[in-house]
Amino acid sequence: MRTGIWLVGARGSVAVTSVVGALALRAGLVEPTGCVTELPALRSPALPGYADLVFGGHDIAPTPIVKKAEALAAAGVLPARLVTALPDELASVEDEIRPVPAAARQADVIAALVADLTSFRHRHRLDRVVVVNVSATEPAPAPHPGHTDLAALEQALTTGATVLPPSSAYAYAAFTAGCSFVDFTPSTGARLPALAELAQRERVPYAGHDGKTGETLVKSVLAPMFALRNLKVRTWSGVNLLGGGDGANLAEPAANAAKAASKQRVLGETLGYVPQGNTRIEYVDDIGDFKTAWDLITFSGFLGTAMRMEFTWHGCDSALAAPLVLDLARLTATAHRTGRSGPLGELAFFFKDPLGTGPHSLPEQWATLCAFVRQLDADAFGAAVPPPVEQG
Amino acid sequence: MRTGIWLVGARGSVAVTSVVGALALRAGLVEPTGCVTELPALRSPALPGYADLVFGGHDIAPTPIVKKAEALAAAGVLPARLVTALPDELASVEDEIRPVPAAARQADVIAALVADLTSFRHRHRLDRVVVVNVSATEPAPAPHPGHTDLAALEQALTTGATVLPPSSAYAYAAFTAGCSFVDFTPSTGARLPALAELAQRERVPYAGHDGKTGETLVKSVLAPMFALRNLKVRTWSGVNLLGGGDGANLAEPAANAAKAASKQRVLGETLGYVPQGNTRIEYVDDIGDFKTAWDLITFSGFLGTAMRMEFTWHGCDSALAAPLVLDLARLTATAHRTGRSGPLGELAFFFKDPLGTGPHSLPEQWATLCAFVRQLDADAFGAAVPPPVEQG
Amino acid sequence: MRTGIWLVGARGSVAVTSVVGALALRAGLVEPTGCVTELPALRSPALPGYADLVFGGHDIAPTPIVKKAEALAAAGVLPARLVTALPDELASVEDEIRPVPAAARQADVIAALVADLTSFRHRHRLDRVVVVNVSATEPAPAPHPGHTDLAALEQALTTGATVLPPSSAYAYAAFTAGCSFVDFTPSTGARLPALAELAQRERVPYAGHDGKTGETLVKSVLAPMFALRNLKVRTWSGVNLLGGGDGANLAEPAANAAKAASKQRVLGETLGYVPQGNTRIEYVDDIGDFKTAWDLITFSGFLGTAMRMEFTWHGCDSALAAPLVLDLARLTATAHRTGRSGPLGELAFFFKDPLGTGPHSLPEQWATLCAFVRQLDADAFGAAVPPPVEQG
Amino acid sequence: MRTGIWLVGARGSVAVTSVVGALALRAGLVEPTGCVTELPALRSPALPGYADLVFGGHDIAPTPIVKKAEALAAAGVLPARLVTALPDELASVEDEIRPVPAAARQADVIAALVADLTSFRHRHRLDRVVVVNVSATEPAPAPHPGHTDLAALEQALTTGATVLPPSSAYAYAAFTAGCSFVDFTPSTGARLPALAELAQRERVPYAGHDGKTGETLVKSVLAPMFALRNLKVRTWSGVNLLGGGDGANLAEPAANAAKAASKQRVLGETLGYVPQGNTRIEYVDDIGDFKTAWDLITFSGFLGTAMRMEFTWHGCDSALAAPLVLDLARLTATAHRTGRSGPLGELAFFFKDPLGTGPHSLPEQWATLCAFVRQLDADAFGAAVPPPVEQG
Repeated sequence: MRTGIWLVGARGSVAVTSVVGALALRAGLVEPTGCVTELPALRSPALPGYADLVFGGHDIAPTPIVKKAEALAAAGVLPARLVTALPDELASVEDEIRPVPAAARQADVIAALVADLTSFRHRHRLDRVVVVNVSATEPAPAPHPGHTDLAALEQALTTGATVLPPSSAYAYAAFTAGCSFVDFTPSTGARLPALAELAQRERVPYAGHDGKTGETLVKSVLAPMFALRNLKVRTWSGVNLLGGGDGANLAEPAANAAKAASKQRVLGETLGYVPQGNTRIEYVDDIGDFKTAWDLITFSGFLGTAMRMEFTWHGCDSALAAPLVLDLARLTATAHRTGRSGPLGELAFFFKDPLGTGPHSLPEQWATLCAFVRQLDADAFGAAVPPPVEQG
Repeated sequence: MRTGIWLVGARGSVAVTSVVGALALRAGLVEPTGCVTELPALRSPALPGYADLVFGGHDIAPTPIVKKAEALAAAGVLPARLVTALPDELASVEDEIRPVPAAARQADVIAALVADLTSFRHRHRLDRVVVVNVSATEPAPAPHPGHTDLAALEQALTTGATVLPPSSAYAYAAFTAGCSFVDFTPSTGARLPALAELAQRERVPYAGHDGKTGETLVKSVLAPMFALRNLKVRTWSGVNLLGGGDGANLAEPAANAAKAASKQRVLGETLGYVPQGNTRIEYVDDIGDFKTAWDLITFSGFLGTAMRMEFTWHGCDSALAAPLVLDLARLTATAHRTGRSGPLGELAFFFKDPLGTGPHSLPEQWATLCAFVRQLDADAFGAAVPPPVEQG
Repeated sequence: MRTGIWLVGARGSVAVTSVVGALALRAGLVEPTGCVTELPALRSPALPGYADLVFGGHDIAPTPIVKKAEALAAAGVLPARLVTALPDELASVEDEIRPVPAAARQADVIAALVADLTSFRHRHRLDRVVVVNVSATEPAPAPHPGHTDLAALEQALTTGATVLPPSSAYAYAAFTAGCSFVDFTPSTGARLPALAELAQRERVPYAGHDGKTGETLVKSVLAPMFALRNLKVRTWSGVNLLGGGDGANLAEPAANAAKAASKQRVLGETLGYVPQGNTRIEYVDDIGDFKTAWDLITFSGFLGTAMRMEFTWHGCDSALAAPLVLDLARLTATAHRTGRSGPLGELAFFFKDPLGTGPHSLPEQWATLCAFVRQLDADAFGAAVPPPVEQG
Repeated sequence: MRTGIWLVGARGSVAVTSVVGALALRAGLVEPTGCVTELPALRSPALPGYADLVFGGHDIAPTPIVKKAEALAAAGVLPARLVTALPDELASVEDEIRPVPAAARQADVIAALVADLTSFRHRHRLDRVVVVNVSATEPAPAPHPGHTDLAALEQALTTGATVLPPSSAYAYAAFTAGCSFVDFTPSTGARLPALAELAQRERVPYAGHDGKTGETLVKSVLAPMFALRNLKVRTWSGVNLLGGGDGANLAEPAANAAKAASKQRVLGETLGYVPQGNTRIEYVDDIGDFKTAWDLITFSGFLGTAMRMEFTWHGCDSALAAPLVLDLARLTATAHRTGRSGPLGELAFFFKDPLGTGPHSLPEQWATLCAFVRQLDADAFGAAVPPPVEQG
């Protein structure tokens, strides 16, 4: 049950908030607010406990995670008292963060990543390791034949070529090292057919894509509301103002396009048609780790009457993402433990752009997730399945 | 299958919009936007068709419904072309609207109401009649022993006393005349134990209370969103600015209190705790038939991070209510036809303050409603149940 | 005092709303809401009356203005009763709308424009004509030496070259025909040094640029508020969602860039520094003639405390622009009559991107405008200056 | 030039923020953001410098101001580093805070207040003292003949009666002790004819009422915008959600009524008519020292077109008020020094409900303030008046 969580982007805001939070939960310093696996309907003895989690990761940045944690505290993302209360625990995590390996040949980079993962697992005698990508969003890569076919990919790598975008190289390394993988960002990650093939071959599961942390979460309940009331949504337009590291990165048109597409998918799939309008992402440095999203929805009702709704969401992305990182790691590790492999469509509740063809409506995703956790329990404990618990 | 819809408040905005809409649907002049019984998952041959509906009602106001319809068209609530396209049909409905009977003894008023309902049913050879209360909101009545016990109520009425508020007198008359009843407003209506007893005795069903048309609809999907994400809602405060007849009426403190309580119930029952804050209702004549609601929600996430959301809803209450009136009448009539009596908790989807102890989360209410319609089908057609249809 | 108003884009929403409004004001059918020259402080006998105004114009579109007026009435921009009340008056204006002249050589196009203006003036025995550009926004033109020097411009035109963007060709024609000119759009229009030279040579005045109709109007009072309270604006970001003809046009990146720059100028010039953030313009067809703008302002106060403000503006651009078109035409014609020529910086109150170096704060622009009208009065009537009237 | 600032409510949020800010400004630790007397147009050598200010005050609360400052830092109102940087300075202010005197006869209470003020002035060898009321809002008092006539008031006090509400007792004491007075709250304070008479007799000036810190500030620029554009405001409705001590107090209906009336005055006086709608104040404990105000404005433009605007203001009242307290104290002290007495209508810029009959439009109030400061300069330095400086 000892479970490693290997964070790609380990010194970033989401990763450090996840680490501080897990350590604080283990120490009993905070309530598990925001952790959905702590709700009565999802609490499960099959999931690893917070005391069973060991953290490590890769990052190109050199800032110590204590420094990052202090900066997050100053920005209002987490309480300063937690940083001062956990010096030894944070130092232990610091020891497990590695620079991103550099090599001319991508195959060599991947081999070094695999070695880091394997060494981490052995050093801490972990039952299994989940690799979670929480690094900055990449632009979409140029197509390559190796993306669609595993044999072609392996062949191309032997030539020394750089075939995969970084997020996919991490997925490749994870699968090769026998680790499960969580795509928390809109980057390519595991979403290449060649990597799906590899995951199946190595018998490891993976989850994704793109954590549903704010405005899309709201969309995933409001869009079904309009649909269930047979109201016709005419336009849905929005703007996301965000600062912080990911904000600057998403202001790049290529990354922006990947993210915006991910954000609008929910509308077409929930409403059955695509209303007019777009979601714009704009970088505003001053906003820092908080994000302000504004959406305007115009719709018509009975006899065509024109009506409208607006909402503003002012959320802290790191605080919204971090508990989901812990939830996903615990669930994916348990899926691995109970013998699952390949895409975990049952985790759609957590993602903007979920794997598979499941529903985009949050409540339907919730029902699927509840059933999945019950099944994990059953598989972990045989006949002794705990009964489902209703969420009050 | 010929079904009467008897509207209490037949010359009001909601009633006239319902009538114009039903006539326009029958004539094929409009799409059934806003009618939830027209969604694939709820469409059912057991429900009466629009051509099977016959309208009548009571009102104290003298304004002809054509005049009211023209005023609604001028206010942007419905298209003027529908009013000009349906002169004969509207005149036929006009013929079936009766003044509210006046008498010194409430028992005599009720008897006159029963006579009007019975005459309406016979004149149009209707299979059954649904009485729908869409009149102005009343203040809560003073308690009376006759409210809790049917025998006491009947005894009190024989003395000539006025025991029931008007909305409850209509419910009493409806049940006595063998009609089902829909409480579309927050007024007392059928929600007295004595009337529940009467409905059971007369073998008629009833539905209520208080149609969920706007801000509460939004609450019923946002509150579960916060709950499913284990986010802690700290405050939920709002203001409703509304004009029109019901606005002026709700500005009366007593009616306001009834409505505001109905609006906040969803929070406690969905979240499991009551956040700080209130919903204020304010009358602003200039806003007319449209309503603007603004809500501020503050919540905390992982490690206590403070976040917030605001929304503004700008809706036309009559346009939101009217299709639900048609849905409810069709569903309640079918419940009656298939032998149901007493409170229809399965219709909670439509109400702010639903009968019974069912869920307040819109998606859960939706699932209940779908199952109910399937069962109505089964009961209406025996073994030949149409298969459930998934809502895309 | 007979004054012609020649509208470039005469069949567009702004032009037709201006025409219907002026005719309705002349007929006493409406109040002059939105007309600032009707406020006590600006009312002046020196300005031409509504009965003195004669309309004509150019347009490439063939739709009759009555049809356009009916469409505007259907969209809620103006009351249908006005269109039906003014059939003869609208027909008279229709007679004075000319197609845009076509010719291979731009010099020939300009000559035809001049002929149209001269003929209009003679036919109606007008004392003077104001040309107002209310056509769709153009992209910025490629630079040309003829833009900065009148002699070079005239020389280039003799070669048959197309040197000027259309809006500037209209300004050139207006000045040549002895007409004053109002730049109501962000297009180039008169803002070329060569045209400034021409206006001075021909002794005609001009006003511009870009009518301040909505969000920028709000900025021009909120930005001074922050400045006068010594509050530090950190970011000011916004999005404009607009439909209608100009919306589609402004969605073109080049036109968008011209407009967005014009919208942000007020911030730098009022605050003394440029806060972070942008104004995005997005086309949403469904919104039609109305526009929704949302702005987020973050600012810091005493000891650096972070605060914020949001606003949403839901306005009808044509209804906001049309009365200003009438105001500007009346003021510019009077400036012409009283011997003024060249740029009228005193009209900055009306523009997003005003001529000259005056203040961008609305109240300061208002004070300048009041003084200007007093001076027009003095110049028109000699010593018999009416006393200033305080605006209540 | 040594100037005392005596704060009524010296341990409250506004007072402590003012004190920390003044000490930090003196120490050069912060910029004077929010201080309008630091703008180029208002900077004046006639005003006392921050190093010339000495603080003291009354409060019923026992919490040390360092504790209050730490709580404000934790709530995000001011930076914690300032509290830790100024321990000795804060201790010195602590020494000058006195409990509110208690006595059976109001005359004795007033005498004790006078003694405290006189002792403070002598102990610190101050040239003059300004008393500033920043304590919690009181309900309006019952009328008393002594309120309108000074002789009657003095007579009534000799009987031992309690004639004045507490805020007016402070004003009485201030004037008697030869101190000027600033009414920063909506409480009665100096706004009784008898106290106006006393101020004139004692030759001391006073300023008020009710500091314009947030939503009313926005109204004072938006209302003139609508007026200057001749747009007809139909409704202006709002809600203020606020926590903190003053929030709980304002939730009391009597105090609420006083405040709400003060907030709407600006509309009638700026627009020339009173639009429909109200401003509600609601206490929401969780919001703490920050306030969220939402306003909806509906208006009509040319030809009656209906339009609307909404804004949300999320401000920290203490951070908005504190620099104005310093500005007002410096200006009022200088008015006193230059021989002014009675009501200072020229300070209307700072108040929701200003003394006198001046304009409610912020820019007009600003112009009046600028002229006033120039005159203070002239009076303080004779002929050597510094030239006016333009605000960039």
